[in-house]
Amino acid sequence: MEAVRATERTQLRRLPKRATYQRETIYSILDEALVCHVGFAYWDQPYVIPTLHVRDGDRLYLHGSAASRMLNTAATQLPVCVTVTLIDGLVLARSAFHHSVNYRSVVILGNAARVDDREAKLGVLRALVEKIAPGRWAHTRTPTDKELAATMVLQFPIEEASAKVRTGQPMDDEADYALPHWAGVIPLRLAASAPIVDPRMPSGTATPEHVLALTKSFALPNGQR
Amino acid sequence: MEAVRATERTQLRRLPKRATYQRETIYSILDEALVCHVGFAYWDQPYVIPTLHVRDGDRLYLHGSAASRMLNTAATQLPVCVTVTLIDGLVLARSAFHHSVNYRSVVILGNAARVDDREAKLGVLRALVEKIAPGRWAHTRTPTDKELAATMVLQFPIEEASAKVRTGQPMDDEADYALPHWAGVIPLRLAASAPIVDPRMPSGTATPEHVLALTKSFALPNGQR
Repeated sequence: MEAVRATERTQLRRLPKRATYQRETIYSILDEALVCHVGFAYWDQPYVIPTLHVRDGDRLYLHGSAASRMLNTAATQLPVCVTVTLIDGLVLARSAFHHSVNYRSVVILGNAARVDDREAKLGVLRALVEKIAPGRWAHTRTPTDKELAATMVLQFPIEEASAKVRTGQPMDDEADYALPHWAGVIPLRLAASAPIVDPRMPSGTATPEHVLALTKSFALPNGQR
Repeated sequence: MEAVRATERTQLRRLPKRATYQRETIYSILDEALVCHVGFAYWDQPYVIPTLHVRDGDRLYLHGSAASRMLNTAATQLPVCVTVTLIDGLVLARSAFHHSVNYRSVVILGNAARVDDREAKLGVLRALVEKIAPGRWAHTRTPTDKELAATMVLQFPIEEASAKVRTGQPMDDEADYALPHWAGVIPLRLAASAPIVDPRMPSGTATPEHVLALTKSFALPNGQR
């Protein structure tokens, strides 16, 4: 896969060694993140709204109510910024100054376009459900025409983008390594606890395989708590 | 505590029953979230950048390099949006349409101002370190004048803000409750695994109490994995 374009607008100036423009990295971060933050300006005021996203190939898709101000603003081809951030750990350094967070983030700049084709829209909604819970689509009532009409889907080309990644231990000033302060990383990740069944399900309903697998996919490594 | 102002710009139009303007709710979300997303416009292009934040009373504080484009742009009193989002669970409904995510988010609109007073700046940096790891400040080498000069601190009044919260089970269409599809919630939260000590620490260094307490504070409820 070739890299995305690094433009004047996406070239990282702060800590450029943390930057990457490789699609593999950008796509893996987009795919792991459940939620993105969409930035758009409306009467000179920037707004940042969290929403679900899904990637298919070189495109990113958002969806929401057809009445959403965010989506309707974005659909007018105004410039938009989509950012996703994964938090991987707390970095405790010997100096207060070098305390940090391990993270992986992606910033995409671009102009959104509406997806109006019925089959294409349905494909995006399916991908969104499958992203939340792989294998889930087959276990749902699929959207009606009315539901499809009430849903707006936007697409974005992933062209002007960058990823920024911090990993590993603190980088203290050399002189500070002699200090007695404990230093290290507390790894963090999004973890699931046991599914809570909807009380309106018939009692004794078994938890299906795709729900158990979903919970397991969020388990901590090595059975840690 | 009184509520924040609900203005034309922060009044939620989509699903207004999920909205709140109570400071208690807004503050608890801000305090739990490690990272916020800051939106600002630069030559008509919105940018959304993740960064750490800390609240003190009715103000939110951000910090970063004195050379940061984001902070320097925000410091010019341009309108900025700060958004934080906590993901609490995946909501699996009987219908694809009603799949959702449980979350708590806060959106703050405002204009930032620089904090230049040395003691005030130091207080914010201390609060940031203490937020990442309570009790940590006493176990660090405190900032030098050079480090303070290299750090910009911005403050924001928490005045024009709203919180949006979704909790609980899916809300399916009444007719869909007869369907056999499993429905429920997979609770999610940010969880820690065991601290990874910096290999440059002397071997056999005991993990201090504040680091153990920090790891525990991210534990899953009821010892679940």
